[in-house]
Amino acid sequence: MPPTMQAVVKPKAAPGIELREVPVPAPGPGEVLVRVQTTSVCGTDLHIYNWDPWAKGRIHPPLIPGHEFSGAVASVGRGVTTVREGDPVSAEMHVACGKCLQCRIGQEHICQHVRILGVDANGAFADYVIIPESNIWKLPPSIPRDWCSLLDPLGNAVHAVLAGEIAAQTVLVTGCGAIGLFSIAVAKACGAAKVFAIEVNAHRRAVAATMGADLVLDPATENAEKQILETTGGTGVDVLLEMSGHPEAIRLGFALLRTGGRASLLGIPSRPFELDFARDIIFKGATVQGINGRKMYETWFQMEALLASGKLNLEPVITHRLKLAEFPQAMELLKSGEAIKVVFKLE
Amino acid sequence: MPPTMQAVVKPKAAPGIELREVPVPAPGPGEVLVRVQTTSVCGTDLHIYNWDPWAKGRIHPPLIPGHEFSGAVASVGRGVTTVREGDPVSAEMHVACGKCLQCRIGQEHICQHVRILGVDANGAFADYVIIPESNIWKLPPSIPRDWCSLLDPLGNAVHAVLAGEIAAQTVLVTGCGAIGLFSIAVAKACGAAKVFAIEVNAHRRAVAATMGADLVLDPATENAEKQILETTGGTGVDVLLEMSGHPEAIRLGFALLRTGGRASLLGIPSRPFELDFARDIIFKGATVQGINGRKMYETWFQMEALLASGKLNLEPVITHRLKLAEFPQAMELLKSGEAIKVVFKLE
Amino acid sequence: MPPTMQAVVKPKAAPGIELREVPVPAPGPGEVLVRVQTTSVCGTDLHIYNWDPWAKGRIHPPLIPGHEFSGAVASVGRGVTTVREGDPVSAEMHVACGKCLQCRIGQEHICQHVRILGVDANGAFADYVIIPESNIWKLPPSIPRDWCSLLDPLGNAVHAVLAGEIAAQTVLVTGCGAIGLFSIAVAKACGAAKVFAIEVNAHRRAVAATMGADLVLDPATENAEKQILETTGGTGVDVLLEMSGHPEAIRLGFALLRTGGRASLLGIPSRPFELDFARDIIFKGATVQGINGRKMYETWFQMEALLASGKLNLEPVITHRLKLAEFPQAMELLKSGEAIKVVFKLE
Amino acid sequence: MPPTMQAVVKPKAAPGIELREVPVPAPGPGEVLVRVQTTSVCGTDLHIYNWDPWAKGRIHPPLIPGHEFSGAVASVGRGVTTVREGDPVSAEMHVACGKCLQCRIGQEHICQHVRILGVDANGAFADYVIIPESNIWKLPPSIPRDWCSLLDPLGNAVHAVLAGEIAAQTVLVTGCGAIGLFSIAVAKACGAAKVFAIEVNAHRRAVAATMGADLVLDPATENAEKQILETTGGTGVDVLLEMSGHPEAIRLGFALLRTGGRASLLGIPSRPFELDFARDIIFKGATVQGINGRKMYETWFQMEALLASGKLNLEPVITHRLKLAEFPQAMELLKSGEAIKVVFKLE
Repeated sequence: MPPTMQAVVKPKAAPGIELREVPVPAPGPGEVLVRVQTTSVCGTDLHIYNWDPWAKGRIHPPLIPGHEFSGAVASVGRGVTTVREGDPVSAEMHVACGKCLQCRIGQEHICQHVRILGVDANGAFADYVIIPESNIWKLPPSIPRDWCSLLDPLGNAVHAVLAGEIAAQTVLVTGCGAIGLFSIAVAKACGAAKVFAIEVNAHRRAVAATMGADLVLDPATENAEKQILETTGGTGVDVLLEMSGHPEAIRLGFALLRTGGRASLLGIPSRPFELDFARDIIFKGATVQGINGRKMYETWFQMEALLASGKLNLEPVITHRLKLAEFPQAMELLKSGEAIKVVFKLE
Repeated sequence: MPPTMQAVVKPKAAPGIELREVPVPAPGPGEVLVRVQTTSVCGTDLHIYNWDPWAKGRIHPPLIPGHEFSGAVASVGRGVTTVREGDPVSAEMHVACGKCLQCRIGQEHICQHVRILGVDANGAFADYVIIPESNIWKLPPSIPRDWCSLLDPLGNAVHAVLAGEIAAQTVLVTGCGAIGLFSIAVAKACGAAKVFAIEVNAHRRAVAATMGADLVLDPATENAEKQILETTGGTGVDVLLEMSGHPEAIRLGFALLRTGGRASLLGIPSRPFELDFARDIIFKGATVQGINGRKMYETWFQMEALLASGKLNLEPVITHRLKLAEFPQAMELLKSGEAIKVVFKLE
Repeated sequence: MPPTMQAVVKPKAAPGIELREVPVPAPGPGEVLVRVQTTSVCGTDLHIYNWDPWAKGRIHPPLIPGHEFSGAVASVGRGVTTVREGDPVSAEMHVACGKCLQCRIGQEHICQHVRILGVDANGAFADYVIIPESNIWKLPPSIPRDWCSLLDPLGNAVHAVLAGEIAAQTVLVTGCGAIGLFSIAVAKACGAAKVFAIEVNAHRRAVAATMGADLVLDPATENAEKQILETTGGTGVDVLLEMSGHPEAIRLGFALLRTGGRASLLGIPSRPFELDFARDIIFKGATVQGINGRKMYETWFQMEALLASGKLNLEPVITHRLKLAEFPQAMELLKSGEAIKVVFKLE
Repeated sequence: MPPTMQAVVKPKAAPGIELREVPVPAPGPGEVLVRVQTTSVCGTDLHIYNWDPWAKGRIHPPLIPGHEFSGAVASVGRGVTTVREGDPVSAEMHVACGKCLQCRIGQEHICQHVRILGVDANGAFADYVIIPESNIWKLPPSIPRDWCSLLDPLGNAVHAVLAGEIAAQTVLVTGCGAIGLFSIAVAKACGAAKVFAIEVNAHRRAVAATMGADLVLDPATENAEKQILETTGGTGVDVLLEMSGHPEAIRLGFALLRTGGRASLLGIPSRPFELDFARDIIFKGATVQGINGRKMYETWFQMEALLASGKLNLEPVITHRLKLAEFPQAMELLKSGEAIKVVFKLE
């Protein structure tokens, strides 16, 4: 083990990051040290980079961000029994407390005291990362290694899609960032009858079609409401998967949801907004679900099974593969909307 | 059968009603003519009386309103086989089309083409009312006759309470009109661990306690949020039953809903309003349900079973028993907040 | 309309059938007369042909059997509004009473007083058949006409597969008759991770592989238990779809079901049999479901959506296409095990 | 802490037990030492005492049996944070592995590698018992201390009753041992419309009535099938809670289950037995559930909430309160059928 490693560090309460050599941490009891091989960027990382209001309220520098990665076990702490040196792994980065009501009734994904690695403690934008054994996910050989840093956002999509019936359902995905795009592929793999996608960015619309969407519309220039209502015989869609967080898209999604349909909301609106609850939820007899994280660990088993059966192609979502030293370029590519998912390959 | 009957009639597109003698209608094939014995007033009737914007957009005078009643079968049309003259009955007044998607998959209560008797066609504020056989509900002797006009709003409460787990759950009822009050009793009868109720009207708060609420709070003068959080160890309630339709109450309800909890919304907000979807639904992993009408006819079987087993006391909700000719007085009692449920007994 | 039609008739309480010219029936109010274009044979028809103990107890000759068909509306009775002459249609042949508890709570498929056309009243092995309007299913152009007589057994498969979670699950299908084979295709289309199939007939095993089964085993010559346990890491399968009705296969299926798994039983055992309830159900925390018919009409919407999206290929299951006059040959082909599904094309 | 304690010990592979002074164990890291105050006897303990075939195959003497208890924390091992000396506690005695599929998807109660304290390791028939911190259940003051050793079997009942809808349902409990009797009370507290109970032992039938059963029948002398069918209008019961493990009772239970009903099986049949799967499960469209242990820890929260709200009276089930030294007498009382639940109070 080398004494130091490269790491992306948020050094202080201000925009930007630094690339630094920092000491390689040592795993404590029940912890696993992982040599990072791929890691990828989430919108959260951009918030931290930009030092926006959410970041100001949540992040305590110095911090190594990054919560999407795969790698190989480098060493294990005392008491670790389920993995050993060399095992290929990824990890669930939400560390649940195990003691609150939610943790005790099988809802660890909404733990009252969750600690997120890469947000509340050091994460994976570095050569090595420390993970509690409980959160390690051993990777089967059947999953292409290049995709394994994407299990975190893919898991969000699997959680949202499988939060209710999906087979034989008509589905609307509003917002085609990485999670929205994954949702299209997952919904189709799980028997969705027809998947509609709405997205303002032309490049993302093209990828949405590649992922299997049956009809992709630009709400800025097309009458999405009219076209989708017509295609569904005036009934609307059975399932809304809301991945944008934009009030306009959310309102459009609810307008298109059929009476008695399911709306699974994952995109995070940046502030409160108005909705016509009477028309869009109550008279409609709709079911609305807040989707957070990944079920621990039901979603992981589902995701692994879908990937292993060859039903999912994640490749089109990876638009850039860079070196970790190119982190600032990655931030610019994401800000410009040119990139969807940037993966860093570490030497 | 007499040739004419007394009826409360909305004669024209303006506030008010008239008491008139009108012809007794004759049941067509598959229809049942019922001699009304008790009938009661819903908020909808007050909207029609006041001729508010909703009424203007929906009601086509002349119309006999009224959709809560019980009575006895007076005569039956051709082909009717399940009831006969003299049978005690009430009815589901939402008449489903039977042909839309929702009707064909067991969701008749949210039929796309529903027609409501007392709203879209003549209702029960009269000596006689015509009901399709499919919608007739035969009354068992075990239910006190005096309560049988209340099955419609009681069914709303049963539908809301039983739309998810209720046994051993902590429950918050926001808004203690008739349906909110019934919800308290139903939740307690079905094993709710603790029922909190919030209501601004002092008389209704007193009835809420009588119905079995464990803690009743006035949000205008008490810190309901603090008290309920303290009582639940900081976790919040498992179930929110929203019966007020008031944005303030709804926001308070969501603030008190535990992470992973269920919010069943029945009260109808009069206009769109702002909610912090990120905090109140998405990060919370909440499930939000729009509750409309009564499940046809699962809710009716549940309601009958609960009533027959003696678990429910509806009496405290009936604040006034009047004659049908006193209809205008009933409207004033309701406007003033003095009355909760007014029942008319017909001679 | 011609005055008479050819029909397969069970003339009396004895083995065999007769081909006869019989009068074309006239649709009553609410009924639809359909010109049959394709019709296919179910195991039930073979029971009726053979006049086995079940047939003796249930069938009242003379009867026209046959409950799988498609065709075009020839004429409609009074009051029929949802189809008209020429519309391509199939039908649900279980006619529910509409009045029992089950019918009133959305479980028409297990109506206490169900009447099956082709079993309890005349069916579709004839040029024309009478169907109540409620049971008519209008066919979209997207479904190949040649497959449309198969909606009844395909619906059984869809009902069984979608009676619980299926996406990302490992599945065992025991028994590869037509419904078992359809189940394989439906499970794969709906995201099953891996589908195992068990069948003693070599031809059916070959078709099982064509339908998408990942591993097909002959329990007579292979150690299915060992192989499937190994493939699932010793855990067993998440879902058992029992389509054989054979005690040995059912016991094998339960032995392979994982702790906490789902067993959906559709195959009909001919007599009571022994099971180790303690080991196979109770300690296992298993969920066992009896699957009967098709949900009315949720299953039909699901089936239509899956077919329309191109996810299902039914062709390999149709082993023979004959003329109705060749009915006795069809019976022999089925008895010999040579045929899986025989479709009759009417001129 | 004294150096030794009294304990009931199974000394060797043969019938009987011994009362011995043994060393007080010391809690390791993550473990809690509890001073036992009450402990009670389960049928499992009688199997161990009698050294029947099940015990021979499972138990490795020497062993301190006993898995129902309450007490106070005596001392805690390193790392324990959720309880401290003096805290009143009980415990879930099924210790899950935390690593198998079932444990990782929220089904710890059916862990593939479960270890039961009192069966696979030392239990609670002693002055002190060692419990892993994860399995400790802190007792609120609202639960009568005298009932707190009963949480294990009460939890079985709560798990069974709440494994599906219960409010407004008709329920049949077959077998009125302690768990069956608790099930009656729990079902009534959770809104069951009517609870029928079947039991051959007269004393238990009397207690069943005390617990709230609406109709209690002796299948040996009464026509239970006829009476229950009549009371349910020929439909049968919505829910079967099978608590006897006797084939005759199970078959009677299935015969009385309504089409589309739920059967939750908890009683353990001692060997395989015959059932008419076609009639009793498949055509019936029934849902059958194996019920094992208590959900960890959802059932515990539910149980605590029901007890704290005063909805349950456990007293009638406790027929005897003895000293631990009277263990052999307890065994005789249970063998004779005279006792239902024997509680030991330790000094």
